Amino acid sequence: MFVLRNARVMTCDPAQPGLGFVDRGAVVVDGDRVVHVCDDAALPAAYAKAPMHDCSGALVTPGLVDCHTHAIFAGDRANEFALRASGASYLEIAEAGGGIAATLTPTRAASDGELTALLDQRLALARTTGTTTMEAKSGYDLTSAGELRLLRLLAARRPAIVPTLLAHLVPPERAADRDAFVDEIVTAWVPRAASLGLATSVDVYCDTGAFTLAETRAIFTAARAARLGVRAHAGQFADVGAAELVAEFGGLSADHLEQISPHGVHALARAGTVAVMLPGACVQLRLPPPPVARLRDAGVAMAIASDLNPGSSYSCSLPLQMWIATTHLQMSVEEAWLGVTRHAARALALPDRGALVAGNHGGAVLWKTDLPADICYRYGAPLVDRVFA
Amino acid sequence: MFVLRNARVMTCDPAQPGLGFVDRGAVVVDGDRVVHVCDDAALPAAYAKAPMHDCSGALVTPGLVDCHTHAIFAGDRANEFALRASGASYLEIAEAGGGIAATLTPTRAASDGELTALLDQRLALARTTGTTTMEAKSGYDLTSAGELRLLRLLAARRPAIVPTLLAHLVPPERAADRDAFVDEIVTAWVPRAASLGLATSVDVYCDTGAFTLAETRAIFTAARAARLGVRAHAGQFADVGAAELVAEFGGLSADHLEQISPHGVHALARAGTVAVMLPGACVQLRLPPPPVARLRDAGVAMAIASDLNPGSSYSCSLPLQMWIATTHLQMSVEEAWLGVTRHAARALALPDRGALVAGNHGGAVLWKTDLPADICYRYGAPLVDRVFA
Repeated sequence: MFVLRNARVMTCDPAQPGLGFVDRGAVVVDGDRVVHVCDDAALPAAYAKAPMHDCSGALVTPGLVDCHTHAIFAGDRANEFALRASGASYLEIAEAGGGIAATLTPTRAASDGELTALLDQRLALARTTGTTTMEAKSGYDLTSAGELRLLRLLAARRPAIVPTLLAHLVPPERAADRDAFVDEIVTAWVPRAASLGLATSVDVYCDTGAFTLAETRAIFTAARAARLGVRAHAGQFADVGAAELVAEFGGLSADHLEQISPHGVHALARAGTVAVMLPGACVQLRLPPPPVARLRDAGVAMAIASDLNPGSSYSCSLPLQMWIATTHLQMSVEEAWLGVTRHAARALALPDRGALVAGNHGGAVLWKTDLPADICYRYGAPLVDRVFA
Repeated sequence: MFVLRNARVMTCDPAQPGLGFVDRGAVVVDGDRVVHVCDDAALPAAYAKAPMHDCSGALVTPGLVDCHTHAIFAGDRANEFALRASGASYLEIAEAGGGIAATLTPTRAASDGELTALLDQRLALARTTGTTTMEAKSGYDLTSAGELRLLRLLAARRPAIVPTLLAHLVPPERAADRDAFVDEIVTAWVPRAASLGLATSVDVYCDTGAFTLAETRAIFTAARAARLGVRAHAGQFADVGAAELVAEFGGLSADHLEQISPHGVHALARAGTVAVMLPGACVQLRLPPPPVARLRDAGVAMAIASDLNPGSSYSCSLPLQMWIATTHLQMSVEEAWLGVTRHAARALALPDRGALVAGNHGGAVLWKTDLPADICYRYGAPLVDRVFA
């Protein structure tokens, strides 16, 4: 147990307005559990003997939640990055055998120990920038046994990792019979992942070059039947109606959304689906920014995630994503903070993360500043003082 | 003295093609001086007894050169950042008394010791991401004595710091008589900075809201008379012809260049002036990217800098700027590396920096990868293993 005193506490408590500040506050944490949050002057005597840290007025926030990553993979795609920087497009590289398919081979070849070591490195690095909960998708094996292996390795790192089964794309060797591949996802991957308790949601990359709307509908139907949440990579390259489909299924989140119609935005609002912004991938792939103002006006909750992956965003720093979100994407500082705390937790259906409320999990982060804007503003600076989780 | 062996050496030697790789190379450094660079197998026996580090094939590059910063200032502008994220424009905030003027008061009020401590913190932080040489401009005092004080504090940190006298803007209290203020720069600041040896170049912010083309011409004329180099903040908000003026004076660099005509590009090419890209400020202020392809086609050397300053880019990480440059700005990985090494050194008229060539200065950086693209690609990751300088 640990008591943080004399802190500027940003609770992100949904019962409070805005970011729910307690300006001279105290937070009691025990492991990753939030035990008590109060005015510093009102700290119960019961906690007086626990180890205490005087925060000198510095900011204490919930542990950050990264609600969209592809954190389990082997190999890298630095060569493709260099090609793109020299003018090739993401889709051109994918069509030439690069892209997601290029990560399948090293990932399939890697041992459990190798993949776990890589995952642990990424978790440790993310923690240095404040992340204590990270969603992580399968999707870089794309065989039935291989996808379950990835989910098993991810599930072994719960609760820091929240595993998602991802229908990422149709791998080259199955391209001749897409229907059989989709059928395998529907009849084998999804029900097995659910019955083994290895995933809490199913994500489909529903876009040009990946799964069609009809294929996505079939996979979502299977997910719902297995009582798993649904989400989609929606509207990154083209608006094929993925956001509307996620909304129709009452999905947890629709992610990317560079291409989404006003109709799609209102569908998300009605369904209470979270819009997940992936600012780094948006910049890296030179996509137009998603329609943040329209999402805001419609009342859609926005989250911000790293999209950590070897193709379009090789980074796990949420503070950096917050800088891009508050500049290139024109989100406010308050939206950026909610995007990596409460709204990100909501996208993961984890009401006990992303807020400093007694009984919650995910720990707390002490920052080297008292200004919430600093974490967006001083980009690239190491502003995490200490992570309590 | 220190010997780096078994390294992938990126020399950036102008006598070699491209980035001048020595794939199994050795580098001998002594303090910040480069003593010897060769094939590992050819290391002279004279160095066999110096402390040795086996790099295991990892990348060794010149110490990075950040050729455009405003590293000496007090206070911050996190509040303005938050306002901008909520929709206010940079020029709106400046017109309301914010912007550069808002940094004048805390900087003027800060003691020499306070300013030096802040500068040293920034230098130390920049070093963690590979920077060993940092240009730093005055410009946050804007009185005659105060500007010389800033230059004196900067000059005390040579050779890590390269001081530039910056005519930043006309401060509010001098707005009623711009001509007298410009005259003071011309007749007092520039000749004094030169005679005291406190700056090697003069920079003018020549743009809408700052100095006019005629005022810039007067300041450049004084700089040339005092045998100082000239450079300008050119075309950040409007193309007022600043690039052409820098070229006319044979200037060292024209910086920003979001707004530059084809005529301006060709003027820079003819003059051999370096175009300094400031990718973070470009993203943060939501400016259009500078015309990189046109600059490349015209044969203009491009550098990349952090623009470290409290208004538009509170960061000193060159690797982050390299990520933005190779994605949002569509520069190649090779261009990004030359931009923070040889071309940045050229922008500072420092032919002995930015390249691992015997006799040069600026030390060397050992990276945690053998892939030059990784430093652009894995954005936000701490890839510096060790800085030798």
